[in-house]
Amino acid sequence: MTLPASMNALILKGHGFAPTRTGAAIETLNPYLEYGSLPVPKPGPGQVLIRVRMASINPSDLYFIKGEYGQPRIKGAAAGFEGVGDVVDGKGLYARYLKGKRVAFVGGVNGSGAWAEYIVVEAAMCVVVKPAMRDEDAAGHVVNPVTAWTMFDIVKASGSRSFVFTAAFSQLGKLMAGLARDNGSVMIAVIRKESQANHLRELGAKHVLVESDPEFAAKAAALCKSEKPKILLDAVAGQVAADLFAAMPARARWIIYGKLDTEAPVLKEAGQFIFMGKRIEGYWLMNWFRQASILTKLKTLRAVQNRFISGAWTTEVVATVRLADVMRDLPDALKPGDGKVMIVP
Amino acid sequence: MTLPASMNALILKGHGFAPTRTGAAIETLNPYLEYGSLPVPKPGPGQVLIRVRMASINPSDLYFIKGEYGQPRIKGAAAGFEGVGDVVDGKGLYARYLKGKRVAFVGGVNGSGAWAEYIVVEAAMCVVVKPAMRDEDAAGHVVNPVTAWTMFDIVKASGSRSFVFTAAFSQLGKLMAGLARDNGSVMIAVIRKESQANHLRELGAKHVLVESDPEFAAKAAALCKSEKPKILLDAVAGQVAADLFAAMPARARWIIYGKLDTEAPVLKEAGQFIFMGKRIEGYWLMNWFRQASILTKLKTLRAVQNRFISGAWTTEVVATVRLADVMRDLPDALKPGDGKVMIVP
Repeated sequence: MTLPASMNALILKGHGFAPTRTGAAIETLNPYLEYGSLPVPKPGPGQVLIRVRMASINPSDLYFIKGEYGQPRIKGAAAGFEGVGDVVDGKGLYARYLKGKRVAFVGGVNGSGAWAEYIVVEAAMCVVVKPAMRDEDAAGHVVNPVTAWTMFDIVKASGSRSFVFTAAFSQLGKLMAGLARDNGSVMIAVIRKESQANHLRELGAKHVLVESDPEFAAKAAALCKSEKPKILLDAVAGQVAADLFAAMPARARWIIYGKLDTEAPVLKEAGQFIFMGKRIEGYWLMNWFRQASILTKLKTLRAVQNRFISGAWTTEVVATVRLADVMRDLPDALKPGDGKVMIVP
Repeated sequence: MTLPASMNALILKGHGFAPTRTGAAIETLNPYLEYGSLPVPKPGPGQVLIRVRMASINPSDLYFIKGEYGQPRIKGAAAGFEGVGDVVDGKGLYARYLKGKRVAFVGGVNGSGAWAEYIVVEAAMCVVVKPAMRDEDAAGHVVNPVTAWTMFDIVKASGSRSFVFTAAFSQLGKLMAGLARDNGSVMIAVIRKESQANHLRELGAKHVLVESDPEFAAKAAALCKSEKPKILLDAVAGQVAADLFAAMPARARWIIYGKLDTEAPVLKEAGQFIFMGKRIEGYWLMNWFRQASILTKLKTLRAVQNRFISGAWTTEVVATVRLADVMRDLPDALKPGDGKVMIVP
């Protein structure tokens, strides 16, 4: 197969970090991206070139293109962290082994990204996808499902029978609901809209708290008493989470993995750290990838794929946007915020 | 020896917790204590009766009498957590062994306290004091010195060559300065008054930052870059500490062991938890006592006593107030805040 010299891609306009903290909401992409042409990237040693089938959109992508994520932008590089595609070239033993295989991947290198026709990634960051797995499930296979799986491992390791999960109508929240139910764990899901409650209960959340409910604080306090959750998994990092944390029992851990709320929380009770042994910490999937053993990674990825293939997990895709239409259509497609939006070349 | 039936004591007026958060400052003791007579308490099994020689005053005592500490008050009980005295009675094997010995102690039981002529404590909470140790050093032997020693163990275990210490002109801060110097560790001491800086440097702090210095933030940021402290030991739990924590490098831990500042801090950068692996936690000596092995405790207490006997540590007593004069004299005696105030019966 002959590879083309150039390809279409969504190209970053900004460079480095931005001083803003505007969150994941996107009204228009014009300040951040442009649709254009880039040379097809070349794989170095230990890297593979992938023809992208489908790229997923995560909140981290939206933070990133704005310059508000934990990694700096490179102006002129393609955007997009995650997707699924076919390996068409590669350098090195493992890379050559992957040639011709369908893989899920994370993290473009050499100025490449998933929101493009081709991407170069480290072979080590590719996961061969079983044939029975749909592209829709494989495209968002790593970031959210592996985060859900490994965060649920934290809940299990803590010994807590229950946990609190904020922004629970996210894809991550839905994945967690099923994991919780199937493992006999009590998920206390915190959501914004009453209309989302039933679906989340069906997926496996035992309790659903709606932030706009005037009884929210009282209900949360009652659940903290009865279920005694020791883990708060939080994508919001705002005052609602801080107050939930304060209502939780001794030795509770507030684990922040996202920052949807742009207002900074106030820590009202220092005594909770001293006398109650509470803790605030963070979670980032990339650190898990750096620290976990190869065996743990393989077992986790296989378990995640099997959960999708068995139908225990399904990716709810609400919109699929073509690369050429992203600038025009993506902001509206993201608005409902209730399911996954995919990009196809 | 015949024991009297009653004794003089400073008696708690309040009960349980108070809703206030006024801090350790005391203008008058009248709302919290009264000087009066109580029956001499009786030791139960495994407990000893101690004739108090000298009681120390810690910030925790002042929070406690106000109802702002992590333990509830019992109305009518004597105040005071810590002191030194002679064991005059005891029930149980170890308690009888202690009879006649001079001991440092923490934590009165059965409604007794250290700010009295007699106190009953668990025999397990007594430490026999070597003859060469002064009463002034023994009276405050456990709370501050053991806290300093065990918190410094946290610094050592972290592998960080340096640490930040707030409210560093406290007795604890002075003890830490010596430990830091003698162990080749860099202490970055944060204080309020420039006048305290030289003494703290003499005691062993390598760097001293004065909060009122207009260059405070810039100097702190520069030291965080050059010394790379991973541990912040903090008795203040206010915005100054939160901003120091934000300036510290990846994997920094903010360890809160007190809350001198009554204003709650704002956490501005959730990303620091996620991407930089930072953590907020607490430290409480009572948890160390509950969790450490007997051997660790004995080694620690022996090391602490030897440090006082060798003169490496000295308790700087600025005032000694008689029990009968406490209501009138203590608030003024505490005002300078630069050394230890003791109570003698």
